[in-house]
Order: sequence, then C-alpha cells, then structure tokens
Amino acid sequence: MRAAGSAASGATAYVTLEPCSHYGRTPPCADALIEAGIARVVTASTDPNPRVSGRGLDRLREAGVAVTDGLMAAQSERLNPGFFRRMRAGLPYVRAKVAASLDGRTAMASGESRWITGAAARRDVHRLRALSSAVVTGVDTVIADDPQLTVRDWDEAFLPPRRVVIDSQLRMPTESGLLADEQGVVVIHGGTMPAREPDLVRSGAELWQVALTEEGHVGPVAALEALAGVEVNEVLVEAGPRLVGAWIQAGVVDELIVYLAPHLMGHEGNPMLTLPGLDTMDDRLGLETLDIRQFGDDLRLTFRVGERKED
Amino acid sequence: MRAAGSAASGATAYVTLEPCSHYGRTPPCADALIEAGIARVVTASTDPNPRVSGRGLDRLREAGVAVTDGLMAAQSERLNPGFFRRMRAGLPYVRAKVAASLDGRTAMASGESRWITGAAARRDVHRLRALSSAVVTGVDTVIADDPQLTVRDWDEAFLPPRRVVIDSQLRMPTESGLLADEQGVVVIHGGTMPAREPDLVRSGAELWQVALTEEGHVGPVAALEALAGVEVNEVLVEAGPRLVGAWIQAGVVDELIVYLAPHLMGHEGNPMLTLPGLDTMDDRLGLETLDIRQFGDDLRLTFRVGERKED
Ligand SMILES: NC(=O)c1ccc[n+]([C@@H]2O[C@H](COP(=O)([O-])OP(=O)(O)OC[C@H]3O[C@@H](n4cnc5c(N)ncnc54)[C@H](OP(=O)(O)O)[C@@H]3O)[C@@H](O)[C@H]2O)c1
Ligand SMILES: NC(=O)c1ccc[n+]([C@@H]2O[C@H](COP(=O)([O-])OP(=O)(O)OC[C@H]3O[C@@H](n4cnc5c(N)ncnc54)[C@H](OP(=O)(O)O)[C@@H]3O)[C@@H](O)[C@H]2O)c1
Repeated sequence: MRAAGSAASGATAYVTLEPCSHYGRTPPCADALIEAGIARVVTASTDPNPRVSGRGLDRLREAGVAVTDGLMAAQSERLNPGFFRRMRAGLPYVRAKVAASLDGRTAMASGESRWITGAAARRDVHRLRALSSAVVTGVDTVIADDPQLTVRDWDEAFLPPRRVVIDSQLRMPTESGLLADEQGVVVIHGGTMPAREPDLVRSGAELWQVALTEEGHVGPVAALEALAGVEVNEVLVEAGPRLVGAWIQAGVVDELIVYLAPHLMGHEGNPMLTLPGLDTMDDRLGLETLDIRQFGDDLRLTFRVGERKED
Repeated sequence: MRAAGSAASGATAYVTLEPCSHYGRTPPCADALIEAGIARVVTASTDPNPRVSGRGLDRLREAGVAVTDGLMAAQSERLNPGFFRRMRAGLPYVRAKVAASLDGRTAMASGESRWITGAAARRDVHRLRALSSAVVTGVDTVIADDPQLTVRDWDEAFLPPRRVVIDSQLRMPTESGLLADEQGVVVIHGGTMPAREPDLVRSGAELWQVALTEEGHVGPVAALEALAGVEVNEVLVEAGPRLVGAWIQAGVVDELIVYLAPHLMGHEGNPMLTLPGLDTMDDRLGLETLDIRQFGDDLRLTFRVGERKED
C-alpha cells in the first residue's frame, strides 16, 4: 500500500490473516487499510486469538469496507501452523525429525550415529531448523553427540532458533559445544539443583524449571507451554529415540519427519523410537503420509501423527 | 514368423536372446530363422550358457544372415535376471520381501504380524510370487503364521511357484496349511531324521537334504543350488528377520523389497532383519535404491543389495 500510494484507493486487498484492530508491535492494520481507501478486503483466516478474533473485520465493516472472509482458509493456516496452534491451544506446532537406516536404526551398536544420512538430507534439516523458533534436543544426545544445532548454509536474515535441551536432572556437561558459542541455550529442568546450577549458568545456559512427570522426566506439555510463553510457534525436536518416543506417546508431536538412508545398521543398533507398552496390532500408532521426497540417496518421509485409516 | 509366412523372407528379426543352435524343448531357433529367409538378425544378448554361447550367431552368419549383437543388452538382461544369473553362477536371482512398520518392525511384541500392510501392497506381493519360480520361507514363520504362499488374484496361465520351507531340523508341523492343499511343498533340511521324515512325507512334503552351515542351519547357497538344479531362475524369500537377515549376510540376496506401512509398532516388536555383528558405521550394509512407489497407504521400496556410494 505504501508503494501504491493514492492508487490504492478503491482497490481490493487480499490478506491471509484478518487485519488487526489493536496496537501491538505495529499500529492497527485495519486502520491503515481504511486510511488508504481500500474498498474491499478478502481474508483467508480470522485472527485465531480469541481476545481479538473478528474485531479487525468488524472495524473494516464499520468504516464501510466490503469484507469477504474464509478464502482458502485451510491453505493459509498451513503457512503458519504454529501461530494458529499457539493461539488456540497455547502450545507450539511440533515437528520431530529422525535420521534412520532402512531397518529403523538411529545409532550403531557402538553408539556411533554420524552420519546416517548424506549431505543433501542434512542440508534439508538446516532448512527445518530455519523454519523453527526453537530446536529441542535431549541431554543424552548432548552427551553422546555434542551437537551444535545451529542453522548453517541458510539465509542469515532469519533470527536463529532458540536451542533447547531437555534435562530434568541437569546432567548437561559444562564443556558442551552448545555452551561454547554466543547463541545461547535454554536448559529445561525439573528442580532446584544447587550443585549444578551455578556452573551451567556461568557457562552461559539459561535455566528454566518446569513440572516433572510421575516418572521424573521433564513433562512434554510443561516444556512446550514454557516455550509458547516466549512466543515460540514452531518447534523442531532433534533427539534420540527416548525423547522423541516419549513426546510422540504424550501426543504433543504433530509431524514426524524421517530421513531414511539406504543401508542396514542391524538389530543391535538403537531403535528409531522408544515406545513402551505397544503389545498387539491394536496398540500401534497410526500415521498419515503427507510427503515423500528424495534427497540424494536418502528418502524424506513426512507424516502427520494421528489415526490411520483402516482398510 | 509363422504368421508372416513367405513375407518373412528378406526381413530383419529383432530378438532379445541369441537364437539357439541346438535341440532342447524345441528345435534350433537359428535354423528356423534361416529357413524363413530372414536377411538380418539383431540380438540383445548372447546366450549366457557357456556351452552354447555364440554358436547360434555363428550358425546364422555361416548361412549368410547379417548379425548385429548387443542392442540394449543390459535392458534385456533385466527382463530375465534369473536365467542369466543361473546360467552364469549356477544360482537363481533372489528377491527378499519384508513388510514392516515405519519404525522397522515386522511383528508386534505379542507375535502378531497380520496385517502390517494394506490390501494394495499385499496384492503386489502376489504379483512378486507370480514372477517367481519358487517362494521360500522359514520354518519359524510357518509355525508362527501358517502362511499359504499361493498366488491369488493373478493370471492362472502361469505355473504357480514352488513353495519351499527352510527347516534344518524338520520342525515343520504336519498340520501346516502348506501341506493341506494339492500344490505341494519342498522342505529343505539338513540330515536324516527318521522320527520326522515319514510323517512329513505322508502329509505331502517333498524332502530335500542339503549341507548345513557351521552353525547348523541349512546353507543359503546349498539351498539355492538345489533350487537352481530344478531350473528355478527367480526366487522370492518371504520370511522373518532371521532367515532374511542370514541370507542377506550370506550375500545371496540380490534385491530387497520393503513394504513400509505408515504406523509405529514400537521397539519391543520384532526387528526388520537379524544382522548380528554390525558394530560400527563401517560395518553397515549398503543398498542401492532401485524404485520407490506407493501402494494405497503403504510405500514399496526396492533396493539392490550391494555397496553404497559414499558422499
Ligand atoms: N538418528 C538420529 O536422528 C539421532 C538424533 C539424535 C540422537 N541420536 C542418538 O540417540 C542416542 C541418544 O538417544 P536418547 O533417546 O537416549 O537420548 P535423548 O534424545 O537425549 O533423550 C533423553 C531425554 O529424554 C528424556 N526422557 C527419557 N524418557 C522419557 C519419558 N518417558 N518421558 C519424558 N522424557 C523422557 C530424558 O529425561 P531425563 O532428563 O529425565 O533423563 C532425557 O532428557 C545417541 O546415540 C545419539 O547419537 C540419533
Ligand atoms: N513382516 C514380515 O514381512 C514377516 C514375514 C514373515 C514372517 N514374519 C514374522 O517373523 C517371525 C518369524 O521370524 P523368524 O526369522 O524367527 O523365522 P523364519 O523366517 O522362519 O526364519 C527361521 C529360519 O531361518 C533359519 N536361520 C536362522 N538363523 C540362521 C542363520 N544364521 N543362517 C541360516 N539360517 C538361519 C532357521 O534355521 P533352522 O531351521 O536351523 O532353525 C529357520 O529355518 C514371526 O513373528 C512372523 O510372524 C514377518
């Protein structure tokens, strides 16, 4: 509109999200549309925030602007799944990424897990990180692999995602690579641990305390609510079988992304996911295939975690 | 040529395999081409049987027929991989098929494995059986699943594949479904077992004895040589993780076909393959992706079992 100037007068504006009616980081968008003389506004979704939903459209209508709502609403929500999820449920949209061999192994019997996939698949993981406002891993992955979890080879205009370690007992080593650079790391833990906290804080960690589950682990919902509290909309979980398995079983994972490498690592290797208590065929967890794609020699399979159609 | 009659005179004949020069089940094809007055013969592959290779082409040339050899040789061999393999190596071409969940499980913790995949994938397995001259399974699969291994819903003009059970100690139950119909079953075992043989033979089994491995199992090469001995060119192995794993590690499997179902069966389920002794990343077995295809909700992944390109 700024570029169009007075030419905007009488025009139709197409917008994905309902223009807001309140002062946030910017002045109300609805007012800007009215002032520019826009005659008609077509929106995809109303604002999912229950406190303001519909108010922007009301304001436009009151000012005499014609309003059409709901054009390609589903497609528009998919552009920004975390925002809608957080506004409606108070939780981020969660993707979990796993790199595995065809036989479903995420580490060798020796513990080695680098690299399971090739360069093209690993580069795609950096794209997933860049999409996300937080990258979450588990403390045992930090201990085993000492990962960096930075976004390499990608547009630097983006804010890098927060790096988050789930570590109920504060077992994270102070010499971890995550603490060595300037980007910062959040460690989500479960209680006051005077013996560990000062060292970790001095090493640069930001400590967040949340409620533990009955089994004594950081609760998946508690951790995600804490992240939603700092406006994290999209989370990428990059961890081993126990953290990803527990979060899937807790029902907080929306999308599972598996990079499948064309080799066999053997039954003595680590499983893809730790999912205790699945005994009979009725217990299996259904997935819905969203996308299948090749990256170099590897295959990327994307699933919605939910119920499977029977046939 | 029979339909063309005298019109074949002076024509060019394109044939996939070198015309034979000897009496087998039919009179020599080279003579038939010469008698029909064919002026030029273009072949894809020379006969891989070392005893006759090149003789058919020689006979044509001696009779004044122009011969061009080797057109699309690789493609033509792929039409009939088992014949070329058997002629050159004395072994059939072996496909192994596995149905697994995304997390690489072939049975639930309870032992249940039916059905992992949907109707479309299972129908495709019948196509694979119809391609094969023998379908091989292991005795523990017979005990667990009591499979039928027949070709259903497929062109009945084909000879049904032989059904073969690998069973070194003759543990196969006489009440197995495989023994209940008229199609017959071959049981490959490792020694004289007077206590078991008469019952199984009376129930309709054909018993073949072959050499055992050092660990006391039917040797994969010995079993396949026995099958090659009755002109079996293509074998489909449909078995559990131990038989398929052992045959892959023995190096006798050419193609691995995995039907991957979009669900999670959990780490307490059976593995995809039992592959002992793979400890470090250097030990993994490389595969080459040949084909990726969807069947209903399932994915069919086809691999050549061999070395993986590094990147
Ligand atoms: N192939 C891949 O994609 C990939 C990716 C990452 C890592 N890895 C490999 O995976 C291995 C490490 O895997 P891991 O799963 O042991 O480590 P992990 O990913 O670090 O998971 C351990 C974390 O999960 C928590 N946890 C465990 N059980 C839980 C439950 N029931 N509920 C909630 N939280 C639970 C633990 O809690 P506490 O803090 O209470 O212990 C800990 O924080 C290493 O070999 C690494 O190389 C592979
Ligand atoms: N998902 C699928 O695609 C699928 C397909 C079939 C079966 N299944 C499931 O798989 C399970 C059975 O699997 P399984 O692997 O135990 O049974 P299997 O397929 O019947 O394999 C056992 C056979 O392999 C032989 N064997 C074992 N180790 C060997 C070695 N090192 N070298 C050579 N031969 C060896 C055994 O020899 P001996 O005769 O000496 O014991 C036996 O004949 C059942 O739960 C069944 O439901 C799943």
